[in-house]
Amino acid sequence: MAEEISSMTLCPIGVIHTPYARREDIPRQGRLSTQLCEIEVFPEFACALKDIEQCTHLFVIFWLHLADRSRMTANPPHDGREHGVFATRSPNRPNPLALDIVELQGVMANRLRVLGMDALDGSILLDLKPYSAGIDSFPQAKIAWQKDGEA
Amino acid sequence: MAEEISSMTLCPIGVIHTPYARREDIPRQGRLSTQLCEIEVFPEFACALKDIEQCTHLFVIFWLHLADRSRMTANPPHDGREHGVFATRSPNRPNPLALDIVELQGVMANRLRVLGMDALDGSILLDLKPYSAGIDSFPQAKIAWQKDGEA
Repeated sequence: MAEEISSMTLCPIGVIHTPYARREDIPRQGRLSTQLCEIEVFPEFACALKDIEQCTHLFVIFWLHLADRSRMTANPPHDGREHGVFATRSPNRPNPLALDIVELQGVMANRLRVLGMDALDGSILLDLKPYSAGIDSFPQAKIAWQKDGEA
Repeated sequence: MAEEISSMTLCPIGVIHTPYARREDIPRQGRLSTQLCEIEVFPEFACALKDIEQCTHLFVIFWLHLADRSRMTANPPHDGREHGVFATRSPNRPNPLALDIVELQGVMANRLRVLGMDALDGSILLDLKPYSAGIDSFPQAKIAWQKDGEA
């Protein structure tokens, strides 16, 4: 177990290109944005993209390099009350892993054009996974503390 | 940038208790399983759970400690063809981060009872996030290479 834990180190597999240079530039809901962004996968990982163009939607996991990892609570915008970070999508959390779901618009070699990113420009890409409606879509999910479907 | 990359190390925030001692014990689709599992959050992170009982569904990110991080392609069961790992949900991938979506059944202090986990018993918990139907549900998503909604 000790060996497993000590090896929990991530490797950069690419970089995310967006027009968002500062946190305050990021749209409040990436899903509603019409901004195309680009995910660049480093050449040494390009062969892991085989058939990715067959996926309409992807999970994108990236590193939140500006996060405060010591924060245990957050006050989401437009709510103001304090919630535990695990009950919010705050970037400040013990393991600063961001999760976006994007719509894939096109693939050119090791570059993906996507809709729905809310990453800072230059964010480090960690993983891509296909989104499957059959296992990942839960339209009945609710978050009682929020009014408008955003955490 | 070099400093950011060198610091991409994860900390264990809890442990996942399931009846699955071996890979072959894990149900093919966690979503369809009626097995209750338990997520134990370590006491030092328990305050980050505040209000989590208000969420019906959660993203659970955990570490795939048996993964082969050098694999770039996978042959999913019941498909057999080779796909890039980023177009599959194979546990073998450069950054072995698993993503489950679970239905929260109950919270007792720092322990969550959930449906839908497909983790090995003892897996290391990395993050929890609330699932929001408004931003995370894409019932129209398709994966062309698969026949039955599973990647």
